Amino acid sequence: MKATAQAHSNIAFIKYWGNADEALRLPANPSISMNLAGVETVTTVEWREDLGQDTLMINDAPADAKATERVARHLDAVRARLGVALKANVSSRNNFPMGAGIASSASSFAALTVAAVSAAGGQLSERELSCIARLGSGSASRSIPGGYVEWQTGETHEESFAFQVAPEAHWDLVDVVAIISTGHKEVGSREGHGTALSSDYQAARVAGATDRLERCKAALFERDFGRFAAVVEQDSNMMHAVMMTSQPPLFYWQPASLVVMDAVRRWRSEGLSVCYTLDAGPNVHCLTTAQDADEIERRVTALSGVQRVLRAPVGGGAVVLG
Amino acid sequence: MKATAQAHSNIAFIKYWGNADEALRLPANPSISMNLAGVETVTTVEWREDLGQDTLMINDAPADAKATERVARHLDAVRARLGVALKANVSSRNNFPMGAGIASSASSFAALTVAAVSAAGGQLSERELSCIARLGSGSASRSIPGGYVEWQTGETHEESFAFQVAPEAHWDLVDVVAIISTGHKEVGSREGHGTALSSDYQAARVAGATDRLERCKAALFERDFGRFAAVVEQDSNMMHAVMMTSQPPLFYWQPASLVVMDAVRRWRSEGLSVCYTLDAGPNVHCLTTAQDADEIERRVTALSGVQRVLRAPVGGGAVVLG
Repeated sequence: MKATAQAHSNIAFIKYWGNADEALRLPANPSISMNLAGVETVTTVEWREDLGQDTLMINDAPADAKATERVARHLDAVRARLGVALKANVSSRNNFPMGAGIASSASSFAALTVAAVSAAGGQLSERELSCIARLGSGSASRSIPGGYVEWQTGETHEESFAFQVAPEAHWDLVDVVAIISTGHKEVGSREGHGTALSSDYQAARVAGATDRLERCKAALFERDFGRFAAVVEQDSNMMHAVMMTSQPPLFYWQPASLVVMDAVRRWRSEGLSVCYTLDAGPNVHCLTTAQDADEIERRVTALSGVQRVLRAPVGGGAVVLG
Repeated sequence: MKATAQAHSNIAFIKYWGNADEALRLPANPSISMNLAGVETVTTVEWREDLGQDTLMINDAPADAKATERVARHLDAVRARLGVALKANVSSRNNFPMGAGIASSASSFAALTVAAVSAAGGQLSERELSCIARLGSGSASRSIPGGYVEWQTGETHEESFAFQVAPEAHWDLVDVVAIISTGHKEVGSREGHGTALSSDYQAARVAGATDRLERCKAALFERDFGRFAAVVEQDSNMMHAVMMTSQPPLFYWQPASLVVMDAVRRWRSEGLSVCYTLDAGPNVHCLTTAQDADEIERRVTALSGVQRVLRAPVGGGAVVLG
């Protein structure tokens, strides 16, 4: 009744922002991402007869009530699906800073889902694991399959899952993450999703998302960095524009974020294969190729306001470690 | 056949971005602004029999061909209206940095219009002067009347003019401009207007503009700073969101702009009457009241990245000096 699973964080090229169904966490638009190798959560779940309630350790420290409650609600979904009546001890470790624009909830809920199901002896398809992970955190659905991943909106719980569109080896993209701040953000992405519709721009963002997704996938399939860069930056700008025009407005960009974004555009105009994208946080994900990754890492590290750099090639899917 | 006129720059609370008619410069949406006392252009126009072409001096130096041509086209409009066949020597002086988010074209074309008409002996109404100034630069229409000014869209040349909605003395607002950069911007606002429709968000921005304008006017009439601040910052964010999602994207914010914007929001939450708005440039206009202006000026001056501060109370309309 005990299992350990590992899942990678992921970075979206075409973003998820806002839900069509809050309770089921059905997204307003489809999204596409790559998993981040080495940026991972490892989670152990042990179902036990002697527990009165679920417990949660994060990085070897007891988690606060809010995080524990969120994990307990996710375990409820696993219990309901597998007919388990037990409570669990959950222990989770991230090897990257939480709450600062690197999706810790994505890898966390993917690893939690796979560990909890495995510990209970469940044999579920990747598709179903993705659906369950989605209930914990939308982007966690994309950390279940490996490589380049699309999450389709779906109209029911069973239809809203992520699947691989290209394996890791298809294209050697690298995410060079400029860490601007490792502090927790004031408004988390989960809360932020609920404000999306308060922006006059969300409807237009959603209306164009499928077209951007198709353009992104076409560029990905053809390994066409120029077209890829244009649509990835456009989509990131569009999401942050929605955030900044929500009520109340959400500003995730910090001054150093602008420094990096500006540099990335300049470097691309100089011939390097690089583009930026930002999640709900100040850190700038600089997407590049294996060929240009050393140069980009060197240049990003030298920028003012960048605390450190994290480098991740394309990662695999969530796996049971034992 | 010679006259000198003075006009003030203005700062829009609800912004003009994009034209419904490019040739006539009919704006996509109505806008509202205040004139900036002390931030001014003084222009002398002399119609002469002995000139083969119009000439232009800016701040005592011959202007480049592009600026001279733009002024000559504007003089064409005055010649056509008044039946003048002469060419003119034009000499213009600004007492503030050009091309960095403080609308030099607004005060310049307002002063040029008034001086050119006066030098030709024309007696035109404020309304008609505003229409003509608009042809040179949209926001120049708002530098003709004094105080707080609205520019209605109109569907013809004669209908698209600005008018005073409240006199200078109605409310003692002060614009404390944080000068981030005095360099010329890469993409001028005139060129930028043409890209507005390439953003998926422009239609939604325009659709809501009249509502924001009415909310802004109501707050202005009632001197309700809290409501004024909310709609002014929202409108600025919405315009910059359109700019950043245009193709190609236009980024006017610099890192120090974000520093000031963030500080302004924090100061307001501490109880000061202050809000921000940015035109097509990096400088941040911190709108405040006479009561809080000293404190705001002190705080803005101390922020990192602010080169200097310019302070302007509400200004009057364009006038003939002699």
